[in-house]
Amino acid sequence: METRRAETSEEARVRELVVGWTRAIASGDRKGILAHHSADLLMFDFTETVRGIEPYDRTWDFFYAAPKGPIRFDARDVEVTVGADVAFVTCQIRCEGTSGGVVELRLTVGLRKIGGEWTITHEHHSVPSIEERFQPPPGA
Amino acid sequence: METRRAETSEEARVRELVVGWTRAIASGDRKGILAHHSADLLMFDFTETVRGIEPYDRTWDFFYAAPKGPIRFDARDVEVTVGADVAFVTCQIRCEGTSGGVVELRLTVGLRKIGGEWTITHEHHSVPSIEERFQPPPGA
Repeated sequence: METRRAETSEEARVRELVVGWTRAIASGDRKGILAHHSADLLMFDFTETVRGIEPYDRTWDFFYAAPKGPIRFDARDVEVTVGADVAFVTCQIRCEGTSGGVVELRLTVGLRKIGGEWTITHEHHSVPSIEERFQPPPGA
Repeated sequence: METRRAETSEEARVRELVVGWTRAIASGDRKGILAHHSADLLMFDFTETVRGIEPYDRTWDFFYAAPKGPIRFDARDVEVTVGADVAFVTCQIRCEGTSGGVVELRLTVGLRKIGGEWTITHEHHSVPSIEERFQPPPGA
């Protein structure tokens, strides 16, 4: 069993913000999704690069456009690196219920403290590439 | 023309570290690639998740295994968010010369200041997904 150091209150705050955002996604709370983002955020989405809160908001139109069932957006292996005024978070997400079917994705979130509030300024969402040219040889 | 505020010395330091790392990649300097990484770094690579400096080092074996020409690994749109002790960097990379051919990828790098030295603890590399299920409808 691994011994883990206690989480600081700032780590807990950033973790809660990001986990709260995943819950807003699962429940379709479009305002909640945007609640802690900067106006100029940079998102590397599955297929494209998106800059700014309005284009970011529109990516969720597609996400919710043709649901196949209840939406799940479950984070695991959440790791928080927090400093005085900059933080980043990594996790794995299992997403279900959208037109994309079951999706296992990797997520990195970058945050800055702005006016005393932790604010998401960057998101990098990706799925492992299925392109043959990137597959390492067996046993590599 | 956009007015840009002057970059702080810490921003410049982090930028130089990451750009220096891309140069080490282009020149095949395997020691240089690892020079500023933590032992337990977490990498989201194109196809898999890698933890630790030795598995990370081995990903570069595949990168250099079957070159098609001179390696290029050119960063553009480098944006640095730096705090007192945590930072992250985003950029676009054009990579050429590997067995993968020409690759346009998105990169997020997370850093912590450890013992006074900026140290890479996280990398997220991804290519835009070509999977049909993730393509937004035309005009979306």
